[in-house]
Amino acid sequence: MSVASEWLDAVKWDAHGLVPAIAQDAATGEILMVAWMNREALAETARTLRGVYFSRSRNRLWRKGEESGHVQNVSEIRLDCDNDVVLLKIEQVGGIACHTGRRSCFFQKYTPTEQGGAWVTTEPVLKNPDEIYK
Amino acid sequence: MSVASEWLDAVKWDAHGLVPAIAQDAATGEILMVAWMNREALAETARTLRGVYFSRSRNRLWRKGEESGHVQNVSEIRLDCDNDVVLLKIEQVGGIACHTGRRSCFFQKYTPTEQGGAWVTTEPVLKNPDEIYK
Repeated sequence: MSVASEWLDAVKWDAHGLVPAIAQDAATGEILMVAWMNREALAETARTLRGVYFSRSRNRLWRKGEESGHVQNVSEIRLDCDNDVVLLKIEQVGGIACHTGRRSCFFQKYTPTEQGGAWVTTEPVLKNPDEIYK
Repeated sequence: MSVASEWLDAVKWDAHGLVPAIAQDAATGEILMVAWMNREALAETARTLRGVYFSRSRNRLWRKGEESGHVQNVSEIRLDCDNDVVLLKIEQVGGIACHTGRRSCFFQKYTPTEQGGAWVTTEPVLKNPDEIYK
């Protein structure tokens, strides 16, 4: 399917044809994850109002929740001043955005130590990933 | 200055030695901007609790607010599950994070149209950039 459209041309896709996309909980403002989108992913996200990304590891479109059932209902799509970062406001079905089984991917918090600092895990695993991805 | 430290080694710096960093208003949850950090920028941010980035266009450390006075007081530093995106919770002094004079850089909102869609500006300019950067 062709996805020619001026609003897609306005996005500054990087050398790999991608931009980072932030998924933010529309109700709480919590940042749940950051993934990548190509042109097709953004077009499909806008058309279906479901979070669709491009998986760099699998080199294909990744419809968030296609395995886990944890789809994202998108209520708003924003673009930053440089046209190179997308922001989605979403409802995270199942309440788990992270592949580790946590609500948010940003579960590591910097904590000063005598050695300079450490990343401390602050969020619980809500569901065993083995049970999410069968 | 040497910034050798295990917590900095844990970050997955890209081929250019950078990671994207999201600045989020600590009080409201609003996403204000996304910029890049190198190792020095993250180390200095953690040490000073001020938002410090790496400017790719100027190829040097960028202490946010160094020209505008709009510094960022950092209350929390987080890292995502892949160790390649940083999240800062901040207080934006002056209330303006964007170089366009707007509160947030994410002022363009996708709006469906008959032609497929358009990016519509939704946030006002609070201060003329010419008055911010003298």
